[in-house]
Amino acid sequence: MNWGQAAQDRLSEIARHSADPDGVTRFPFTPEHGAALDVIRSWMSLAGMSSRMDASGTLIGRKEGPIGSKTFLIGSHQDSVRNGGRYDGIMGIALGCLAMQKLSDAGTELPFSVEILAFADEEGVRFPTALMGPRALAGTFDPSVLTMTDKDGQTLGDALTAFGGDPRKVSQLSRDPSDVLGYLEMHIEQGPVLEIEDAPLGIVTGICGIERNAVTFTGETGHAGTVPMQSRRDALVAASGFISEVFDAAQAVPDLRATVGTISLHPNVVNAVPGRAELTLEIRSLSDAARKSFAEVTRTMGQRISQDRNVGFSSVRTYEQPAVPCDKDLTKTLELAVTRSCSTAPRLPSGATHDASAMADLCPISMLFVRCRDGVSHKPEEFASDADMDAAIQAVASFLTNLDL
Amino acid sequence: MNWGQAAQDRLSEIARHSADPDGVTRFPFTPEHGAALDVIRSWMSLAGMSSRMDASGTLIGRKEGPIGSKTFLIGSHQDSVRNGGRYDGIMGIALGCLAMQKLSDAGTELPFSVEILAFADEEGVRFPTALMGPRALAGTFDPSVLTMTDKDGQTLGDALTAFGGDPRKVSQLSRDPSDVLGYLEMHIEQGPVLEIEDAPLGIVTGICGIERNAVTFTGETGHAGTVPMQSRRDALVAASGFISEVFDAAQAVPDLRATVGTISLHPNVVNAVPGRAELTLEIRSLSDAARKSFAEVTRTMGQRISQDRNVGFSSVRTYEQPAVPCDKDLTKTLELAVTRSCSTAPRLPSGATHDASAMADLCPISMLFVRCRDGVSHKPEEFASDADMDAAIQAVASFLTNLDL
Repeated sequence: MNWGQAAQDRLSEIARHSADPDGVTRFPFTPEHGAALDVIRSWMSLAGMSSRMDASGTLIGRKEGPIGSKTFLIGSHQDSVRNGGRYDGIMGIALGCLAMQKLSDAGTELPFSVEILAFADEEGVRFPTALMGPRALAGTFDPSVLTMTDKDGQTLGDALTAFGGDPRKVSQLSRDPSDVLGYLEMHIEQGPVLEIEDAPLGIVTGICGIERNAVTFTGETGHAGTVPMQSRRDALVAASGFISEVFDAAQAVPDLRATVGTISLHPNVVNAVPGRAELTLEIRSLSDAARKSFAEVTRTMGQRISQDRNVGFSSVRTYEQPAVPCDKDLTKTLELAVTRSCSTAPRLPSGATHDASAMADLCPISMLFVRCRDGVSHKPEEFASDADMDAAIQAVASFLTNLDL
Repeated sequence: MNWGQAAQDRLSEIARHSADPDGVTRFPFTPEHGAALDVIRSWMSLAGMSSRMDASGTLIGRKEGPIGSKTFLIGSHQDSVRNGGRYDGIMGIALGCLAMQKLSDAGTELPFSVEILAFADEEGVRFPTALMGPRALAGTFDPSVLTMTDKDGQTLGDALTAFGGDPRKVSQLSRDPSDVLGYLEMHIEQGPVLEIEDAPLGIVTGICGIERNAVTFTGETGHAGTVPMQSRRDALVAASGFISEVFDAAQAVPDLRATVGTISLHPNVVNAVPGRAELTLEIRSLSDAARKSFAEVTRTMGQRISQDRNVGFSSVRTYEQPAVPCDKDLTKTLELAVTRSCSTAPRLPSGATHDASAMADLCPISMLFVRCRDGVSHKPEEFASDADMDAAIQAVASFLTNLDL
């Protein structure tokens, strides 16, 4: 059997369950979600696994190990962004099922139970929350999110009930950490590093911490014709100096990412000096210390630039999420498994958040990245090759076989 | 009589004719415009002038000179922006009437006729056009604008007819240049230069030419977490370098103003690298050659910066209006008149457009700026003092008396 081609075929098949024909649009607790779970059940069955949906809407496939053995978890999410691709999320479930099927076909008996977790919602597009499934397992679920509503006014709790879940029982799903061996997630990289390194697979060192800052420069507006250059207190000019300097400084810090993604001017008209510029600065790093230190550097920059340009400056941290390191032992075992079939296994941080970040509150985590074409994700053009997915299936089968737990 | 205080009182009185109590909102061909013209007629009458409204809605006050003499024109506009101030436009009419009244009270007979022109629309807020009155006099009126509509769908032609004007006759208003001696406009500066120079009045050297450019930097969007800094093609970072450099370079060119007033990012979300940045660059100068040369400099900058940042760049001129110099002889006479009562008479360009720019197609023009507090205009806080307006009335009375035409 060509496992990589099988993965490609399965992802093409399940991509049809989409609310929109342009790419994949599959939100949680929708008819598309239901149809996708039917397909995933068939994948689990082919891998010799039983399946059931838990109260939070997570479809769980289980291959029972010896009596009294513990359980290793493999997970990812079934949902997509609007007009997303065929790989983000769902690929991890497909590859997990195929790796288990490959072991089953070979008659390999593992000394532990394995569960494949098809989480309902990681993207957080339908409701202003996400990660309910893994949080429930980790015991970090906050029931207040059940009252959050989608754009049609339906609550998350009602949508879950209508889907066959049970909002009242989500808090009872938490697992006993002593029964869980660890967690593995496979995901497309969503970035260009593996392509640049010419590597099919990458070993994730951890999930970057994130902070967001609301940065404001306040000058003085005025007529673009009547205020001489020397009299201006142009907020955009100050903001521009800041944006350039932050970018250049971030390049000098290993594995740090700093992004000014939005800017808003007041009054924002062609013939007025901008009096206020508001921008967002997001900083990500696997090192929380490096991230915080860089944020301080940007504040110093902003103060200096605003003094030079005679404008006001403020920077307020509006959001913060600490980094989640991957487990050293699982990561080493994964790296060994990858190098059995690939000549190189680059280590890299995950700049994006994943289900694994919530699972880290339950057990040791590990992540395997699969190269994606041009680093593109969240678009219909998202693509991973048969060969790269085949390598991932081989590596995970080998990883499970060689787990020394 | 305290002429400055009279000016202040008159401007307070006419400010009541506003569509909104917050500042002055007086659009052309509205009931407020009609009520304002009644007030202006009374000013003209007190100055010993006859009055009539022409087909374009310009109220014309006339003081007849000796038989066969030519006519000197003094003008400004009655309209305001939405929630504007009490001085922009209307002050020029009030000061013109008071200067004529002062001469009349003193029994001064001028060797030429004088007309005061209260134009209907210079701000162009109600209809997407402006300057119909002065263009009609100069013979540059384009009748196609009569079909333009306001936000309620009424055409300019219908609004003019309902106001007592005559759209069919606007094109017949053009004056014979040989009958016109020149044109003078008084206006608040709308900028901080006179305040900085501690001067009540300023001599305008000309009205700056204007060009607007649509500038685009095109990079590549991507996930703010997954794309390493070294792989980014960030359109905003390139645009920022451009904005800073343009500002700094413009400071080195005398009397040039360059303004990036708007910016728009795509996708403009907190966690995505900006893939495209579109901005407007407006350049103003009294020297068309200096303006065009600076525009070329900005294109070279944009090309260099975009190469450094590995993004695309384009700059397209979307609008251009050449500079209008003031007449040297009128300006010199005005300067002499101002220095009779003021210790200093700074020369400065007008960065904003005025009725005078259209009148320049008919006759030699001159402009006198009156200092305004904090350089503020187009706001309720707009203010010029009694003393400064008094100085303007003195200067214009002296100017008219000393005109050697």
